[in-house]
Amino acid sequence: MRLGRIIGKMWATAKVESLKGIRFHVMQPLDHHSKPEGKPIVAIDAIGAGEGEMVFWVGGGDAILAIPDRTLPSDASIIGIVDQLNTAESNL
Amino acid sequence: MRLGRIIGKMWATAKVESLKGIRFHVMQPLDHHSKPEGKPIVAIDAIGAGEGEMVFWVGGGDAILAIPDRTLPSDASIIGIVDQLNTAESNL
Amino acid sequence: MRLGRIIGKMWATAKVESLKGIRFHVMQPLDHHSKPEGKPIVAIDAIGAGEGEMVFWVGGGDAILAIPDRTLPSDASIIGIVDQLNTAESNL
Amino acid sequence: MRLGRIIGKMWATAKVESLKGIRFHVMQPLDHHSKPEGKPIVAIDAIGAGEGEMVFWVGGGDAILAIPDRTLPSDASIIGIVDQLNTAESNL
Amino acid sequence: MRLGRIIGKMWATAKVESLKGIRFHVMQPLDHHSKPEGKPIVAIDAIGAGEGEMVFWVGGGDAILAIPDRTLPSDASIIGIVDQLNTAESNL
Repeated sequence: MRLGRIIGKMWATAKVESLKGIRFHVMQPLDHHSKPEGKPIVAIDAIGAGEGEMVFWVGGGDAILAIPDRTLPSDASIIGIVDQLNTAESNL
Repeated sequence: MRLGRIIGKMWATAKVESLKGIRFHVMQPLDHHSKPEGKPIVAIDAIGAGEGEMVFWVGGGDAILAIPDRTLPSDASIIGIVDQLNTAESNL
Repeated sequence: MRLGRIIGKMWATAKVESLKGIRFHVMQPLDHHSKPEGKPIVAIDAIGAGEGEMVFWVGGGDAILAIPDRTLPSDASIIGIVDQLNTAESNL
Repeated sequence: MRLGRIIGKMWATAKVESLKGIRFHVMQPLDHHSKPEGKPIVAIDAIGAGEGEMVFWVGGGDAILAIPDRTLPSDASIIGIVDQLNTAESNL
Repeated sequence: MRLGRIIGKMWATAKVESLKGIRFHVMQPLDHHSKPEGKPIVAIDAIGAGEGEMVFWVGGGDAILAIPDRTLPSDASIIGIVDQLNTAESNL
């Protein structure tokens, strides 16, 4: 799972049937210090996150499993909102 | 999902059976500011997009889910046309 | 499979149903000399590893197979604890 | 889908059962201008392509779908021969 | 498929049930000239390869298909031993 912050929205009227009613967020991937990492992408929202929130998401073939209807064509799905993140890099 | 713009076509007569009748577009991947990002690739069209249109697409193992016939061997499928894209990078 | 060391935790209350009860670790990927490689990511724990331990994990679509309940949306799952690692690079 | 040109062969006697009778090509990936892009890889042939031909192929988890027997362990499968490729980069 | 050479072993007692009895090799990925490419990774052995041998392997979601028991969580599986490799780069 990776971290991200919701920074925008995408609207699309013409799309494959299975994506009707699905919300698309523009999301900035973040590293484990909550700093931007890489470029923003478009992600499907599986939990009802709002703009500005810090979330975690899955990429690749797993993404579709985040929503019960498994025929969703998605390669980036937001599956949770981050409450807290503790990292002790001194362990390395 | 990632963004892209259709910039060309590919024709192929000899191909695996399941790809008969499928249209192939040459597509330039775009970033969230609609700027080219990376090199063009060949994508399957699941919605009937036209040359010059801005689309969104899925890569990887999910791509085949974009079209009801799931036995299509595709790793890049166009699944929608972008109407509008709003990004507030000041949220970071 | 890749190597990693557990260096922290992530808490998330709002998340998709299937992730209820699952533990999330912040994990630093390691190379075959146990040196950090790339940035830390969030991984699901399938074996009960503790902070500071050296583990091995799977990425991509396979990750969900590491835990019997296959509907887990995960793209990084810890599946074992490393006892020992021997490498003879002189073989190259 | 990506483009490639067949530049060699690989022979392997000892291999998993499901790969018996399958041909392996060494293939140079190409960009949309038919120029080499990245390093050659080994690909399975699902259509009977010959050395020197320009082909298109799928990577990742989809590759096995290119051949009816779905239990083939392949992450690069040649699925068609390219007839023609037209690109209008002035569309960007 | 990619090429590699076995250069070591990994031992792990605590691991998910489905990996009991599976051998783990440390493997150096090779390019089509048999030269090291990238860093060594840990791979599952599906054919009984020995240290020092040149092998080919699959990555990603396909890897688990290399062994009949499909619930193996693996993202790198050795599926054959290379006898010979011929490349005519003059074809480009």
